Amino acid sequence: MKLASFMYQGQRSYGMVTRQGVIDLGRRLGGRYPDLKALLAADAISMAARFSNDPCDLTLGEVDFLPVIEHPEKILCVGMNYAEKRKEFDQHNPAPTLFVRFADSQTGHNCPVVKPRCSSEFDYEGELAVIIGLGGENISREQALAHVAGYSCYMDGSARDWQHSWFTAGKNWPSTGAFGPWMTTRDEIPDPHRLAIRTWLNGRMVQEDNTASMIHKVAELIEYISTFTRLSPGDVIITGSPGGVGKKRNPPLFMKAGDRIEVEIEQIGHLSNLIVEAPARAAAIH
Amino acid sequence: MKLASFMYQGQRSYGMVTRQGVIDLGRRLGGRYPDLKALLAADAISMAARFSNDPCDLTLGEVDFLPVIEHPEKILCVGMNYAEKRKEFDQHNPAPTLFVRFADSQTGHNCPVVKPRCSSEFDYEGELAVIIGLGGENISREQALAHVAGYSCYMDGSARDWQHSWFTAGKNWPSTGAFGPWMTTRDEIPDPHRLAIRTWLNGRMVQEDNTASMIHKVAELIEYISTFTRLSPGDVIITGSPGGVGKKRNPPLFMKAGDRIEVEIEQIGHLSNLIVEAPARAAAIH
Repeated sequence: MKLASFMYQGQRSYGMVTRQGVIDLGRRLGGRYPDLKALLAADAISMAARFSNDPCDLTLGEVDFLPVIEHPEKILCVGMNYAEKRKEFDQHNPAPTLFVRFADSQTGHNCPVVKPRCSSEFDYEGELAVIIGLGGENISREQALAHVAGYSCYMDGSARDWQHSWFTAGKNWPSTGAFGPWMTTRDEIPDPHRLAIRTWLNGRMVQEDNTASMIHKVAELIEYISTFTRLSPGDVIITGSPGGVGKKRNPPLFMKAGDRIEVEIEQIGHLSNLIVEAPARAAAIH
Repeated sequence: MKLASFMYQGQRSYGMVTRQGVIDLGRRLGGRYPDLKALLAADAISMAARFSNDPCDLTLGEVDFLPVIEHPEKILCVGMNYAEKRKEFDQHNPAPTLFVRFADSQTGHNCPVVKPRCSSEFDYEGELAVIIGLGGENISREQALAHVAGYSCYMDGSARDWQHSWFTAGKNWPSTGAFGPWMTTRDEIPDPHRLAIRTWLNGRMVQEDNTASMIHKVAELIEYISTFTRLSPGDVIITGSPGGVGKKRNPPLFMKAGDRIEVEIEQIGHLSNLIVEAPARAAAIH
């Protein structure tokens, strides 16, 4: 099942995406679960599945995609998690590299990704996103995949010139983390480490690998993270990108206004976003 | 004015702390602002001030302190921000070092600070916390202090053996960030860089400096952070600790169950917490 969050006629909703279009679950579930995160928190994906043979309410063209989970409580991002990427950045620390994105740095499929006005090194990273369904702490790696609700694509747009070894300032600019188009539920992805992952910049393939190449696998990441912080329904773990990022190319290859960036993960989906220039420096406002 | 968040008879509230006790603003403001963050968001500190000559409702002994802001949207922590600390960690990067704490890693004054069970290097850091009153983005350093609601003490408990250069796993264990006892409103602190700051472990002074020694001043930090992410009422910036941390002593000096850790900042307050052992490894739960 593919579950998406979207806007339709100015209202936020979520639904099931099929070949025919979108079944509007937000409407059908009568407001019982105000968003996809609430549906996950209520462990109600099976409730959603009951509507899967219904006719669609909307066409894909009618909805504006939101980030799959618009307001995760925690977004944990894994850096340096593919062998090629580790080589590029000369990273040898055996612990998972972890940094945090704030929810307001996200954007949805087909929405503009905003190049930070103060960055001249705005880089792409195509990644597999893991969405937590069942929360917990001290989750063992053996139990970990049972805590996953589903998987999605993520384009972790990175201002390299603000990144440093602590990442925070490079990874939190508004509308730089594209998340979508939807999540594919776990039952359809028995093994999250058998998925081709590819990134294109203006139609040119710039990253190509398989999630089998991840150093720290999804189950191990959930175990590691849940040792020090509780995971809750709707939390997101972004699992790192393959090699081939723009910063380490010769010459470097960064994103600019007008570019199109796309991330595709096998069995999950194809995320596409246009890069736009940030608006002129806004005055401080409330 | 000193504003605290607390529990009283099982109910969350917040109030004004005076020499005589606590004026329960949560009760008096009739639930209009459910917590201190909501009071700040409504720019209603002046509303609170109206009650300042009223008799107290509670004694200090009757309340259990909560983190000053229990659920900030963003907690941004500055590392390596005092000259002595930078020397200890051999840090030369001119950009502010920034990492993130999740709200559920916090605890209040007089509440237990929990030593992570998997860390043998649980270290103290006494810090000045800045609480945002007026949100914004692209805030200039000249305007920055007008965006501050007040200041508090923070004990940024750090699992050094999980910290790495990206900090996340070292700084997010439950009940490791003590925040309180209260915030002193900005009108009482015309210059946040003229405050003595001291940390004691079991009565022994282990850190002593003055906020004048900060490399990146509060106004500059607000300018820097608000360049890449929006600041909102109730957001917290923890401004880094002086030298003297346990990791860099010879021999090292770490915190263990039964220790008392205290942070005092001139004109603000005195934060005190007992270290306790984490409970035995809990099974994964919802």
